[in-house]
Amino acid sequence: MALPQKHFKRGSTKPELPEDGVLRFFSMAFCPFSHRVHLMLAAKQIEHHKIYVDLIEKPEWYKDYSPLGKVPAVQLTGVEDQPTLVESLIIAEYLDQQYPQTRLFPKDPLQKALDKILIERFAPVVSAIYPVLTCNPNAPTDAIPKFENALDVFEVELGKRGTPYFAGQSIGIVDYMIWPWFERFPSMKINTEQKYELDAKRFEKLLKWRDLMAQDEVVQKTALDVQLHAEFQKSKTLGNPQYDIAFKGKL
Amino acid sequence: MALPQKHFKRGSTKPELPEDGVLRFFSMAFCPFSHRVHLMLAAKQIEHHKIYVDLIEKPEWYKDYSPLGKVPAVQLTGVEDQPTLVESLIIAEYLDQQYPQTRLFPKDPLQKALDKILIERFAPVVSAIYPVLTCNPNAPTDAIPKFENALDVFEVELGKRGTPYFAGQSIGIVDYMIWPWFERFPSMKINTEQKYELDAKRFEKLLKWRDLMAQDEVVQKTALDVQLHAEFQKSKTLGNPQYDIAFKGKL
Repeated sequence: MALPQKHFKRGSTKPELPEDGVLRFFSMAFCPFSHRVHLMLAAKQIEHHKIYVDLIEKPEWYKDYSPLGKVPAVQLTGVEDQPTLVESLIIAEYLDQQYPQTRLFPKDPLQKALDKILIERFAPVVSAIYPVLTCNPNAPTDAIPKFENALDVFEVELGKRGTPYFAGQSIGIVDYMIWPWFERFPSMKINTEQKYELDAKRFEKLLKWRDLMAQDEVVQKTALDVQLHAEFQKSKTLGNPQYDIAFKGKL
Repeated sequence: MALPQKHFKRGSTKPELPEDGVLRFFSMAFCPFSHRVHLMLAAKQIEHHKIYVDLIEKPEWYKDYSPLGKVPAVQLTGVEDQPTLVESLIIAEYLDQQYPQTRLFPKDPLQKALDKILIERFAPVVSAIYPVLTCNPNAPTDAIPKFENALDVFEVELGKRGTPYFAGQSIGIVDYMIWPWFERFPSMKINTEQKYELDAKRFEKLLKWRDLMAQDEVVQKTALDVQLHAEFQKSKTLGNPQYDIAFKGKL
């Protein structure tokens, strides 16, 4: 059964979800944290139903699935009580263990801890650039320098690791967990007055990594066009977020 | 070699730490997140050196160990590059995997994910009560109702699980990860005007759990007296935090 490709809103009827043991992925098409889970599902080719949720006008019935109203959420239907998992990283680790084809987390406990710490260190990158990325007219003036300083950690780390991907010769968990923002950064060239782009010299290794990542099949499968990202953010700033433009030109 | 029992401050000389392969635990005696790691180390009887850090006037050399200046931090000395781990939950999971005697995280990936989500849901409890617990005179007036609503989740969950501990018949990861705040809550009876205590009826199961937890050997080994907690918080509010009172009456 195909679920409708639209973001369910306040006042919408609760969709009838098939009881077929297939997991249910609650998402918002432009949410970078949902994008993390989308990458995991695509990388592991895990069958799922996708239900889109309007995050501003949340459907009343959504709290039956995710008590805090957050996305991403993944509901397991094949097990007792049909629990819903939340928090992108917790979901990612669960999926990695439950679907061990293409392991993405390192097996070694120390490397795993170091990778998780590195992913945590992406939080200051996100919080610094968030107002700029979302076209907030009151973005702090020091947002971009703060963002670049936080991003330096990743440029340096790629150099230290000396490999094309954070995980080594092929893509791993750090690569996928930080990717969603790299897909979104180029929208700043469209949406900012100064046509902001990452400095080619300062972020040389990261930009090379970005080009490699962009060629990955899984990344391509989950990608939205930069024009769409820019358009969505503008619509959000104007108080009328156009969630469903994500489906423009798609089936 | 015994390291000094004091909180190292700005301007202090970097202590010479023994190169004996024993791990180094950087802590602040009253920090609940450090307490989580202390509980893990005690539960697993992991040998360690403990270095206390003044969090207000941080020693300059501390960033050599923990680049963000955060505690808790655990430096591994027996491995290449002597990496430092941060984030209490990441450290806890690493220690659980590396020292598998007394497993504290569930083995089942789903139960593990559910427990981690439950631990995440303690964050709103902490953020609501933090200003009250730390004697901030500008604590929001709705802090206590918000705190109690967030804590209800845990009362309900204990009922659902139907076991004395969150982990079942014996202590597990959720129990230890939320315990540090339960050790600190009674200080509100001393420090708040209304002599605040958890409601015996509303939190019946949690209070029973608290009494059981207080009898645990590991909990006792890492415990600080409620009077000390109260005294520390008052000293902090007065702008002169007395970190070292933690060692009152101890060796």
